[in-house]
Amino acid sequence: MSSSLELITIGTELLLGFTLDTNGAEIGRALANIGVRITRRTSVSDDPDAIRDAVSGALARTGMVLTTGGLGPTADDITKRVVAEFFGMPLDFQQEIWESIVARFTRIGRVPSAANRSQAEVPRGGTVLPNRWGTAPGLWLEGDPGIAIMLPGVPTEMRMLLEHEVVPRLSARADGTIIRSRTIRTAGIAESSLAERIGPIEEELKPLSLAYLPGTHGVDLRVTSWNLPAAEADRRLLEIAVVLRQRAGEFVFGEDDDDLARLVLDAARAARVRIATAESCTGGLVGGRLTAIPGSSDVFVGGIIAYDDAVKREQLGVPSSLLAQHGAVSEAVARAMAEGAAALLGVEASVAVTGIAGPGGGTEEKPVGLVWFAVSVKGVTSAARFLVPGNREDIRARAAQMALFNLRKALISAGA
Amino acid sequence: MSSSLELITIGTELLLGFTLDTNGAEIGRALANIGVRITRRTSVSDDPDAIRDAVSGALARTGMVLTTGGLGPTADDITKRVVAEFFGMPLDFQQEIWESIVARFTRIGRVPSAANRSQAEVPRGGTVLPNRWGTAPGLWLEGDPGIAIMLPGVPTEMRMLLEHEVVPRLSARADGTIIRSRTIRTAGIAESSLAERIGPIEEELKPLSLAYLPGTHGVDLRVTSWNLPAAEADRRLLEIAVVLRQRAGEFVFGEDDDDLARLVLDAARAARVRIATAESCTGGLVGGRLTAIPGSSDVFVGGIIAYDDAVKREQLGVPSSLLAQHGAVSEAVARAMAEGAAALLGVEASVAVTGIAGPGGGTEEKPVGLVWFAVSVKGVTSAARFLVPGNREDIRARAAQMALFNLRKALISAGA
Repeated sequence: MSSSLELITIGTELLLGFTLDTNGAEIGRALANIGVRITRRTSVSDDPDAIRDAVSGALARTGMVLTTGGLGPTADDITKRVVAEFFGMPLDFQQEIWESIVARFTRIGRVPSAANRSQAEVPRGGTVLPNRWGTAPGLWLEGDPGIAIMLPGVPTEMRMLLEHEVVPRLSARADGTIIRSRTIRTAGIAESSLAERIGPIEEELKPLSLAYLPGTHGVDLRVTSWNLPAAEADRRLLEIAVVLRQRAGEFVFGEDDDDLARLVLDAARAARVRIATAESCTGGLVGGRLTAIPGSSDVFVGGIIAYDDAVKREQLGVPSSLLAQHGAVSEAVARAMAEGAAALLGVEASVAVTGIAGPGGGTEEKPVGLVWFAVSVKGVTSAARFLVPGNREDIRARAAQMALFNLRKALISAGA
Repeated sequence: MSSSLELITIGTELLLGFTLDTNGAEIGRALANIGVRITRRTSVSDDPDAIRDAVSGALARTGMVLTTGGLGPTADDITKRVVAEFFGMPLDFQQEIWESIVARFTRIGRVPSAANRSQAEVPRGGTVLPNRWGTAPGLWLEGDPGIAIMLPGVPTEMRMLLEHEVVPRLSARADGTIIRSRTIRTAGIAESSLAERIGPIEEELKPLSLAYLPGTHGVDLRVTSWNLPAAEADRRLLEIAVVLRQRAGEFVFGEDDDDLARLVLDAARAARVRIATAESCTGGLVGGRLTAIPGSSDVFVGGIIAYDDAVKREQLGVPSSLLAQHGAVSEAVARAMAEGAAALLGVEASVAVTGIAGPGGGTEEKPVGLVWFAVSVKGVTSAARFLVPGNREDIRARAAQMALFNLRKALISAGA
């Protein structure tokens, strides 16, 4: 069995929904990676009674609790006071911590306030987790109720303390089994069609589990090993990844955190071509994806956002006759846009997107979600049509991803 | 006192951190708006014991619980079974619901599986919340333990059921006080400078609260009324909004959900001009923001993503001498880009962005985060320089927002 703990994220903002609980998700991932399972996550407001009740329940169920938030000077260190009291530990003022707080303020030309003094108070017998990234240190308490780990709520400080102080300590306690996942990423295929291609897989899978995770990036296939030792988990995950990749075939573009934009840039480098974009319905999102990758400038030269048909005609050289005869959302126009962008910007590869993102503008013949893609690589142009599901935002994000997917396929063929 | 309930989001994915709990945040906002306060949010895995324990604790504390997830056919309707048992309600198969599920599958050319049959089972005495957006209906149970509301975990279905079925029912129960917020949105100013402009405000504020919420969109000022009757809350929020707007001055661009891209389009319509973009470091994000707004095509014609200097020269007509003398990230080049885009695309207004998004490419003189903006409206061009904080992603998102902010200011001046 793996170790387990409960997570308590503290902050009134979290309950009001004004702030997304990204800390909770980040801690989940970091702990899963070292085989520590979070059995419950609770969010409560900055209220002593609510914090006490949540901490007490969590310790009763699992004996180990990790909290974030309620440690800063503005929150009056509520969490520390409540948890220390629960562990029967009085608070001691520690001169050394106070001096490091003063030094930190001095460096940025400020003077700590009286409220900051409480940050130098430590529950007697507790371990201070030094915070080099902010003023509120983390705390690790062990006692009759179990283990309580307290981290600040500021995401960057939480992240650094988690990585440098908490994960190493928890790893030393783990029992050799881990929770480990491997994600096979697909694009250009609907979840149901992908499920048909994969087919029954229970036998090959055991004791791992498989989840289909659809999103605007495509459908991810995540396999998870819950309680095998690390080496066996890795071996089994590799085996099943091979099976899944084979069954999903051409729709697989990568694994785990792979970003199609980065893979497009790599494929362009391998094929020794530079690339340009011609976007109508995505309005710059494909360019935005490519330039999100540091160092993209050696391959991506730029693009034309041809939202108005006049820009398609005058910049990209799409003939008026094509626009009149087929409409802006058509194979002929997509092809002319891709070829026009490559010619105009003097590159060997380009991708064009033209579609109906909605909510208005759809017809029986050309419904909302209809998108034409064209890719031109070294003078060879191909086109593809998709009916993309979702609202305007979804359709545009999916269309950008599929433009990258189609471009990469053509670049790989050209480079091979 | 306002009504309160506890929220339980169910799904193993949530605890592993692979999925962000966006449902939790969305429900928090929707309920705060009608004066229902969420006192605790708990996430548990798709495990009957964990669900039962969480539901039982929540009902004991507040008498009202709202769950999401664990209602689909693949999850074996765990939530429904567990909660129905807790309320002592046997499950009845309802032919009518089954027929609507069959009809829904038939429409998309499929046949429901045996697993779908369980979705037609309803706890006896419970109210079905019809789900026109998916197959798993929501449920509303009332009994000795209190009230349990169950919604599916799929975000679109959850959202529709929340809006159409849950909020109206809960509103009818509320006690007259509400939690209500009003957000003043600013851009182009750092949080600390904004705080200095606002100054001490405790007296005017009471009993409301004020939060500074910085993000890549700028800094939001959110004022919240926690427990006043609706009419008084609205009046007090309006009063303080006037004070905040006055003190924050020219940096205020709107309130609540106002999107700068939409406001830019409105300002362009009012000034009777069409707009174009010229983007270097943002690589299409400004175009992406503008085209995210439905109906943008009457005003936004398109743009040039001029990532490579050759595109700046050859498409936008930026003189080589300017690039050589000042570098691509400079006032002179930003101005030439804006003027070039307007001329090339034949419009009366344009915005240009050129900067160093990092992580590489910074120098002592031109550090990472340095961004030049230029706006050209009816032949008058202005430029501004900002040192934008954050990582590459932050810098690009902030730069896109500031480009829109500067463009709108110029459009309003031109339209006035």
